[in-house]
Amino acid sequence: MDIIVLKPEATNEEIRHVLKKLEGLGLKANLSKGTERTIIGVIGDTSKVTEDVENSIRAASGVETVMRILKPYKLASRDFKKTPTVIKVKGEVIGGKRICVMAGPCSVENRAMLLDIAKQVKKGGANFLRGGAFKPRTSPYSFQGLGEEGLKYLAHASVKTGLPVVTEIMDPRDMECIEEFTDIIQIGARNMQNFRLLLEVGLSKKPVLLKRGLSATIKEWLMSAEYIMSRGNLDVILCERGIRTFETATRNTLDLSAVPVLKQLTHLPVVVDPSHGVGVLAHVPSMAKAAVAAGADGLMIEVHSNPEEALSDGEQSLRPEAFKKLMKELTAVAAAVGREI
Amino acid sequence: MDIIVLKPEATNEEIRHVLKKLEGLGLKANLSKGTERTIIGVIGDTSKVTEDVENSIRAASGVETVMRILKPYKLASRDFKKTPTVIKVKGEVIGGKRICVMAGPCSVENRAMLLDIAKQVKKGGANFLRGGAFKPRTSPYSFQGLGEEGLKYLAHASVKTGLPVVTEIMDPRDMECIEEFTDIIQIGARNMQNFRLLLEVGLSKKPVLLKRGLSATIKEWLMSAEYIMSRGNLDVILCERGIRTFETATRNTLDLSAVPVLKQLTHLPVVVDPSHGVGVLAHVPSMAKAAVAAGADGLMIEVHSNPEEALSDGEQSLRPEAFKKLMKELTAVAAAVGREI
Amino acid sequence: MDIIVLKPEATNEEIRHVLKKLEGLGLKANLSKGTERTIIGVIGDTSKVTEDVENSIRAASGVETVMRILKPYKLASRDFKKTPTVIKVKGEVIGGKRICVMAGPCSVENRAMLLDIAKQVKKGGANFLRGGAFKPRTSPYSFQGLGEEGLKYLAHASVKTGLPVVTEIMDPRDMECIEEFTDIIQIGARNMQNFRLLLEVGLSKKPVLLKRGLSATIKEWLMSAEYIMSRGNLDVILCERGIRTFETATRNTLDLSAVPVLKQLTHLPVVVDPSHGVGVLAHVPSMAKAAVAAGADGLMIEVHSNPEEALSDGEQSLRPEAFKKLMKELTAVAAAVGREI
Amino acid sequence: MDIIVLKPEATNEEIRHVLKKLEGLGLKANLSKGTERTIIGVIGDTSKVTEDVENSIRAASGVETVMRILKPYKLASRDFKKTPTVIKVKGEVIGGKRICVMAGPCSVENRAMLLDIAKQVKKGGANFLRGGAFKPRTSPYSFQGLGEEGLKYLAHASVKTGLPVVTEIMDPRDMECIEEFTDIIQIGARNMQNFRLLLEVGLSKKPVLLKRGLSATIKEWLMSAEYIMSRGNLDVILCERGIRTFETATRNTLDLSAVPVLKQLTHLPVVVDPSHGVGVLAHVPSMAKAAVAAGADGLMIEVHSNPEEALSDGEQSLRPEAFKKLMKELTAVAAAVGREI
Repeated sequence: MDIIVLKPEATNEEIRHVLKKLEGLGLKANLSKGTERTIIGVIGDTSKVTEDVENSIRAASGVETVMRILKPYKLASRDFKKTPTVIKVKGEVIGGKRICVMAGPCSVENRAMLLDIAKQVKKGGANFLRGGAFKPRTSPYSFQGLGEEGLKYLAHASVKTGLPVVTEIMDPRDMECIEEFTDIIQIGARNMQNFRLLLEVGLSKKPVLLKRGLSATIKEWLMSAEYIMSRGNLDVILCERGIRTFETATRNTLDLSAVPVLKQLTHLPVVVDPSHGVGVLAHVPSMAKAAVAAGADGLMIEVHSNPEEALSDGEQSLRPEAFKKLMKELTAVAAAVGREI
Repeated sequence: MDIIVLKPEATNEEIRHVLKKLEGLGLKANLSKGTERTIIGVIGDTSKVTEDVENSIRAASGVETVMRILKPYKLASRDFKKTPTVIKVKGEVIGGKRICVMAGPCSVENRAMLLDIAKQVKKGGANFLRGGAFKPRTSPYSFQGLGEEGLKYLAHASVKTGLPVVTEIMDPRDMECIEEFTDIIQIGARNMQNFRLLLEVGLSKKPVLLKRGLSATIKEWLMSAEYIMSRGNLDVILCERGIRTFETATRNTLDLSAVPVLKQLTHLPVVVDPSHGVGVLAHVPSMAKAAVAAGADGLMIEVHSNPEEALSDGEQSLRPEAFKKLMKELTAVAAAVGREI
Repeated sequence: MDIIVLKPEATNEEIRHVLKKLEGLGLKANLSKGTERTIIGVIGDTSKVTEDVENSIRAASGVETVMRILKPYKLASRDFKKTPTVIKVKGEVIGGKRICVMAGPCSVENRAMLLDIAKQVKKGGANFLRGGAFKPRTSPYSFQGLGEEGLKYLAHASVKTGLPVVTEIMDPRDMECIEEFTDIIQIGARNMQNFRLLLEVGLSKKPVLLKRGLSATIKEWLMSAEYIMSRGNLDVILCERGIRTFETATRNTLDLSAVPVLKQLTHLPVVVDPSHGVGVLAHVPSMAKAAVAAGADGLMIEVHSNPEEALSDGEQSLRPEAFKKLMKELTAVAAAVGREI
Repeated sequence: MDIIVLKPEATNEEIRHVLKKLEGLGLKANLSKGTERTIIGVIGDTSKVTEDVENSIRAASGVETVMRILKPYKLASRDFKKTPTVIKVKGEVIGGKRICVMAGPCSVENRAMLLDIAKQVKKGGANFLRGGAFKPRTSPYSFQGLGEEGLKYLAHASVKTGLPVVTEIMDPRDMECIEEFTDIIQIGARNMQNFRLLLEVGLSKKPVLLKRGLSATIKEWLMSAEYIMSRGNLDVILCERGIRTFETATRNTLDLSAVPVLKQLTHLPVVVDPSHGVGVLAHVPSMAKAAVAAGADGLMIEVHSNPEEALSDGEQSLRPEAFKKLMKELTAVAAAVGREI
């Protein structure tokens, strides 16, 4: 149900016009005439009322504002599905009691390096191998990733270690190739509202890890999940990775309160990426532990065997030994909040 | 030239390691040993040093921070090209003394309505017809635009009125079709860092209007322009359309100070979109006038003959009469700052 | 009138409890039972319902959310007073057709320098002399202002030039001394929610210039004006001086859309401070012109005869010649929007 | 050491002028002439160079920018004092291995209610009683606190339970009275840059809990701590309570990454207030646990025996039973990160 607030000076004719519009949409109205404002409570299934219709009512003369109470997303909402969504990928589970850890380098640089890191994170306790073959870079002059070659290295490391792979898609034209080599398709923060790409992965049979946009509200983020789900792919994993604020001591501000908020609004699993979230190596372990304590279902962590030689984001990658140490600490925190890792 | 600041506890070996790295890049170093910090001033053409190399130095042990002084964009910078870029499209000029006005509906809804609006904005003094055939919408359930059909209506209205057309591209796969029907290709705010799309329009012969992302810094925005220009398309128009802040009285916060900042940093023309910038019809005229006074080279304004029936953004569209009135007021403001309209 | 939205699972008892609360407040309720939510439209004079009562309803079990439609400020609102407030100070007018200009150094440094600047801004066309005797500085080690001595220099320069004076108060204990020497009392951005100070200046007979807090919403800003007005001082001037965002190219982001928004919500005059708003000298003139075009009633501009020697904010102060040049340009822009300067 | 970057077109005379200035300050300069820019590395104890001198160099002609490398705060920095500051208050310790918990109502409402809550939080394991007698409220029409009467109730509850008290000061004129009745003096978020108030509490013998301003950077926050410390009071406790961002699902965005950042920059203890940080009751426990996992030295939590009747912030207060349950969960999380509670 939506609420329509009329202007103090709204005429009866204007009110009637709005009521007629609602009637035309098969909705009923409950008029509350107050001393200062008249309010229309809209009764009926307003979930079918699109943003556009809402805007047209907002633009009608005599209308001051329109407030939507029902959430604009359906498939992604807790109301639609009460039980948490559990996603299974090659024996690994996302959204269950066990917290899943996705670890690996920011970008795939070469076959040997990748395999080495994969083996090490596997030994450290990771459940998934992460690594970018297609890299969104702020500068056109930066390393843009190995492309298909990188995907093959990921598949190779996956076979050798048994770790399923998460990698990013940047272009709908790469869909076929990405689908062939990866287990989870990642949508990066900068593409969270690349709606065509969302529709594309919505047709895939592979789960999608959807990163939060740098300035996306939680509602917009869930609407992007809805885009994917509306095409039939219900296996969406939400990944908080920091939002843009005025603070410059960290690269982004990791919004950990998004974890409990999402747990209330949606049934989808929630993963946290502290590496991009803070962008400062020294603070990654603290924030990884905080994420688990806040109730995250998983973590995505950058690990590199030689951060100084990394072709991207070296300054925020843990070395394998530090990763192993962190995993031990995380085990204790997970147990403290009734989870496993 | 970049500056490398070393940690107070940096060892001589660590310093030597950094110096060797610089040498390997063909750069010279100037060491300043202070009482509390040692600083390395890097001498030579550091514009070739990529973000990745910079990051690898930042990740080296003993290094506290790396500061870049030279701008990371080249082709887009004033240093590269001192004179303002003037873009000519079918007799219209963007970036000259005359302020150009792009007006039209948010989205193309049908042939007759579009032609009607086009005629009216032409009469009001607009230089370009704007209108979306492919619409980026927050909700998958909202009207997504007429697609190719909409492009044809735009081309038709263009022929009938003589107004060149600006329309948005959302998917690299639509490139051929968009190029056929439009005069300026628009990259929307949500796609400002859709790097694959930027590279695609960088190959086009048509000018590109690049909207600022909702949380994009001016530097990132110019880097996105650089993406397009690096592929050979130098005709980029920057369009400020509001940034995301904590204020909720307006849809976005129109950052008009971006206009003089850009005029100093780049030679590219700057256009302002007050309709999306404030998102409230009543405030569009004030902000349009302010944009011209701030030095903008153009305006992009939503006009709809029946805002209430508009399928998107009706609440921020001016009616044709209001547009005409605004154009008159703008003429006076333009004259006051030595421009024409 | 307020709206109370109940949770889908709210029991009849919970609803009855809320209705009883409203009754106890002398308010009536209009219940709208929708298919998914029940909504209570509150009828009666809810302007007397305090924030606290609202919060207590929000905390009641069964309540999902409470929405306030009426504005929480009264004396400051357009509904309360339809005509614009015009403030007269020693022959100068703020809020009339003529745009007033407050100019002078950031801080008062010495008697001769201040008088020199005062004479020059007077000649340039300024209507008020601004200058800080008590300075809010981020660092305890920075120059904190001359204090009472500075106030005397201001009064002296005022007598010599005839310009009324605007200066900042930081501490309620300085009230007597400030009131003696100034014509308008300024509340700085960092003290916008220093409620005790607001109440103190609310008792003064002198007009108050209330700067917007760095992260204050327009609503909060008007609530701070309400604090002052609630004590009897109705002469409040609002001063937009930039808000804090993620953008770092400017010191703050000058929110010029606040001007038309305020003009709609309140009858109080609105002044813009482009010097603090952008913090970069080169961009002050553009933003001053944009502020006038946006509808501002006045400008506050930093002018210093020797910015390099200024003890604070030198990098954003115009030299007197630049100020004179700007005043001429502003005259043209003011005329273009039907104002004078 | 600071760095001065000169404009590409800086003349030799301009450079000499800057060098002379440095000499006058007793500093040495190291000139690096690059191909595109000349950089001056400043050698000597630049910590004595104030913000004002820095600004005057920034305003000198020929200077492009000035970069400060040394931190602008001294007493608050880790460089100044390597070991963590441990503050002892009536047998309780802040900053030690044991995490301290400050709990109680948002505002003191009456004697009996306060004592009841105090007893309950004591039983639940709290170490301090929090409660506001002077309340900063957005609206002048909201309950402003009981004032001195409230302080007496706090003192009474403290005697009865043995819990030391934390309460907020809003006005330097209340200093004497506050000091008499409280154990820790709180500076609220809205007063973080009320510099006169900071100086006032800097003269006190009581520890100060300094809340982070809504839009304060970590650097500015530490500068405010420096204000207090510069007057002799070294017992400052920093309290993260959420920053203002674009997200509206929570009242503020709790910036937990501030915890590890502060641990690196300063020796002062860090406390987190999840109640104000998220402003939504349901999410307080998750964020309290996350704060402990992130390394916080303490928590400040709102507890009310009847949130619905609370005169302020009822919607974010835990009931005593929920507080007890949370304390148990926190014990486990604290143990997992090597702490006690």
